[in-house]
Amino acid sequence: MAKDKKQPRPKAVTPKGFRDYFGTEVTERAAMLSKIAAIYHAYGFDALESSAVETVEALGKFLPDVDRPNEGVFAWQEADEGDRGEWLALRYDLTAPLARVYAQHRNDLPAPYRRYAMGPVWRNEKPGPGRFRQFYQCDADTVGAATVAADAEICAMLADALEAVGIPRGDYVIRINNRKVLNGVLEVAGVGEDSPEIRGVVLRAIDKIDRLGAEGVRHLLGRGRRDESGDFTSGADLSEEQIGIVMSFLTARDDAKADIEAGQIKMMPGFFTRSIFDGLEVTDARSVSDRLHSLLDDETGIGRQRLVNYATFTRLKNIVGASKQGNEGIDEVAEMADLLAIQGYGHDRIILDPSVVRGLGYYTGPVFEAELTFEITDDKGRPRQFGSVAGGGRYDDLVKRFTGQAVPATGISIGVDRLLAALTAKGRTAAAAPGPVVVTVMDRDRMADYQAMVAELRQAGIRAEVYLGNPKNFGNQLKYADKRGSPVAIIEGGEEKARGVVQVKDLVLGAKIAENATLEEWKERPSQVEVPRGELVARVRAILDGEA
Amino acid sequence: MAKDKKQPRPKAVTPKGFRDYFGTEVTERAAMLSKIAAIYHAYGFDALESSAVETVEALGKFLPDVDRPNEGVFAWQEADEGDRGEWLALRYDLTAPLARVYAQHRNDLPAPYRRYAMGPVWRNEKPGPGRFRQFYQCDADTVGAATVAADAEICAMLADALEAVGIPRGDYVIRINNRKVLNGVLEVAGVGEDSPEIRGVVLRAIDKIDRLGAEGVRHLLGRGRRDESGDFTSGADLSEEQIGIVMSFLTARDDAKADIEAGQIKMMPGFFTRSIFDGLEVTDARSVSDRLHSLLDDETGIGRQRLVNYATFTRLKNIVGASKQGNEGIDEVAEMADLLAIQGYGHDRIILDPSVVRGLGYYTGPVFEAELTFEITDDKGRPRQFGSVAGGGRYDDLVKRFTGQAVPATGISIGVDRLLAALTAKGRTAAAAPGPVVVTVMDRDRMADYQAMVAELRQAGIRAEVYLGNPKNFGNQLKYADKRGSPVAIIEGGEEKARGVVQVKDLVLGAKIAENATLEEWKERPSQVEVPRGELVARVRAILDGEA
Repeated sequence: MAKDKKQPRPKAVTPKGFRDYFGTEVTERAAMLSKIAAIYHAYGFDALESSAVETVEALGKFLPDVDRPNEGVFAWQEADEGDRGEWLALRYDLTAPLARVYAQHRNDLPAPYRRYAMGPVWRNEKPGPGRFRQFYQCDADTVGAATVAADAEICAMLADALEAVGIPRGDYVIRINNRKVLNGVLEVAGVGEDSPEIRGVVLRAIDKIDRLGAEGVRHLLGRGRRDESGDFTSGADLSEEQIGIVMSFLTARDDAKADIEAGQIKMMPGFFTRSIFDGLEVTDARSVSDRLHSLLDDETGIGRQRLVNYATFTRLKNIVGASKQGNEGIDEVAEMADLLAIQGYGHDRIILDPSVVRGLGYYTGPVFEAELTFEITDDKGRPRQFGSVAGGGRYDDLVKRFTGQAVPATGISIGVDRLLAALTAKGRTAAAAPGPVVVTVMDRDRMADYQAMVAELRQAGIRAEVYLGNPKNFGNQLKYADKRGSPVAIIEGGEEKARGVVQVKDLVLGAKIAENATLEEWKERPSQVEVPRGELVARVRAILDGEA
Repeated sequence: MAKDKKQPRPKAVTPKGFRDYFGTEVTERAAMLSKIAAIYHAYGFDALESSAVETVEALGKFLPDVDRPNEGVFAWQEADEGDRGEWLALRYDLTAPLARVYAQHRNDLPAPYRRYAMGPVWRNEKPGPGRFRQFYQCDADTVGAATVAADAEICAMLADALEAVGIPRGDYVIRINNRKVLNGVLEVAGVGEDSPEIRGVVLRAIDKIDRLGAEGVRHLLGRGRRDESGDFTSGADLSEEQIGIVMSFLTARDDAKADIEAGQIKMMPGFFTRSIFDGLEVTDARSVSDRLHSLLDDETGIGRQRLVNYATFTRLKNIVGASKQGNEGIDEVAEMADLLAIQGYGHDRIILDPSVVRGLGYYTGPVFEAELTFEITDDKGRPRQFGSVAGGGRYDDLVKRFTGQAVPATGISIGVDRLLAALTAKGRTAAAAPGPVVVTVMDRDRMADYQAMVAELRQAGIRAEVYLGNPKNFGNQLKYADKRGSPVAIIEGGEEKARGVVQVKDLVLGAKIAENATLEEWKERPSQVEVPRGELVARVRAILDGEA
């Protein structure tokens, strides 16, 4: 035999770190995003779908959250102009494109410009378990609004979006903070704006508190930290005193809680926030004190939550002392909390948490994070809180890269895959969607008859299909129906056709009977019934509705 | 002053050939695709979202419809493995990825596998007016079904999808044909399967009949054709006799029409198709003849359409003579037409058209194309038919590249942008969607009051937002509302607040008054009214409903 000289066959694989999504993986995500889009739309946000491809120049050479050159993106050079061809890249998030779009179209866009965007982004990073190089983001941003009312609006909208997709109130909390507070703390600690590198190290250290705990962060603020594998991460090299100041900021909320548990309610003269004192005429220190104590008696527990917020505020006020920026930050958080409270987004949903700083360097003011508070079971069978599903904040300098003018902006990004996983964990996505009714083919020359049946079923709103494989082996047809998750199979052989009847097979019931050893209890409900052809649709409908 | 040494600013532009989509451009497309998805779902098709990035190996080195090396795709080499890094590329359509997905997951997928996919694809081609390098495709395919029932199903589903998005019956037609018929014609003309290059030239020549007309195709079948710019395209170099055979195939439908107009109804003894003769006992040549003539009297015009189909079939039968493949093709088209007719997809929607061959080389059997038949006005103000919005066919060899085994497959691709343009031309998309109600800011310290108003409006299902720009210049706020297309603006200054009222400004009415010179007729309906704060939502609702 002659030697086979054919080309080797291509491998049928997704590139490393990429994956395909099938059936309900696609439709459940689309359903979730469509509910979120409806909320964003109601808030006056407009859809934007920017090009997936950007010039590398427009994206900037660095990813915002890693300290590496443009390895983080998938990039290529335009071929048609030879060596001088422009470098293009796939977008790595939806924020950098927004800055480009706003700079490009600013004369045509309303100011402020509220927009939402949903779509895939690409990261040229090392893939890992559950970590893909293409994934969905879902962002909403307001560009051109300097007021914290814009930040508060984003938080309210986020709460509404979470509830719209099926996270009930009480199962989530939105933690808010402000970068300026941290800046004030660092100012007090003697780490000024002239030390951006140290500030960066401090920022990233604080951002890791969930994972490393207070002790780990303390090490990263000092000399550094050696992890379990023996690798050493060098720290910010702060003094013990400096570390103490930063840690007191970081633990302000926990400390405030402890104060209140111990009955220590401290007041900060002259500092009131409406969300604490609404509905109360505050005339003197006495009435403030009365009010604070009355909050402890609130049976809903929200009063105590308010009190924790207030006590946290006063602790932070003490830490930032005279720092202008620090006080500005605290006032901004207080204003946000007030605006939210008056719209009904109270302490059961929005809380002040100094440990929320968000890792990205570009945030300049308010930062926020949505956390799901219900417990799930982790890989090792241990219960843990579900954790963060969305985060964002104010970033006032992104557009400036293009135009030279600072444009205030604030926004939120929802982790689409994580939120979808949360809904699945809560059983809030459609349970394994039923497959189509399968009309089997007994007589391949009567395909038109079978097609007429599925057409009738679809007319009645029932998902249905004819078996289109080779009909010779009937067992294969039933195996196919099984693989499709079909609730019902229809059978019409020549003998049935002659008598004007069809066999309707209840596959769900059939599976139950097959599972169950004592057939007795099912004998009243045979899994296959014969009905006149004219009653086909009605019978299928009855089975699907659980009435047959 | 020191010289500015800063880096030049990046240009805020989309890469050449790419664009952004704003607001309703995004939401109208999503709404259309969601209606199509519902139809596909009802037919038992499952969603698939494959990775946007594929290995160049899996995509194949050639685009299916151009004769160039892989310049047609955006490709890059994986960096982490140096020169041996794998080449990756953005998908250029949704069919090549389906072949890869099916080959990769075939053991887990049902067989046959019906799937639909919607998403962007990328082409590294020279952009032009209305021709972008990123655009949407919307595909449905059945893999693993050899029967033409699968092709017929795709055509029925396409008709349902077009009607679901708002193309009424009568405004579209699905033209079907079969590649085997053309193969039979070429066999008769002496252009065998051993001349694939010539067959390719003939195929592409026929595919251009809409643009070049019969005369242009005739040149391309012969020596070649010089276009208006003077460029010469060489032809298939067929003899006059060969050209005559191909042209008689191509014009079979028009010729059949002419026959019937001239009262010439020809019969092909022994050739019947159910879609012509359904409900009629055909016993002899006489009853066939009676039936054919009776079709001419059908008042709906569908009878005549059927007759044209039948006459076209008989002409084709005559042309292909004894060619086995040719006769197979004709029988397959007839079977498809029968299957469709019995489900109610008759000659008013599905017609046989030999000039539909589809340019792509990979089709092996049935081919189909959906055309919108209503007229639009072209760029130069001339009326013309809207034309093709979807096309597809059977391709049995795509999966074979990976597995070595031929897997039968058939599918359809809808041109998303063209179909959306058609809906817009027909006024079937939502008219310029109204913007949000804008609550203006008269007193920046009372932002919470304004936020409470929009919260109330949203609760009532009304899209609403607070103005979040600098509120100092009130004129800017009204300009903003105008730019947003707001139907209503709300105004509440300190004086209104004190009296417990708000001003509700009907911006649509206001614009009409501004346009109209004779103010008289509007004086009974002032465009701005004062209402108690408690009646805000009711009043806005009344204006939106056109009742105020």
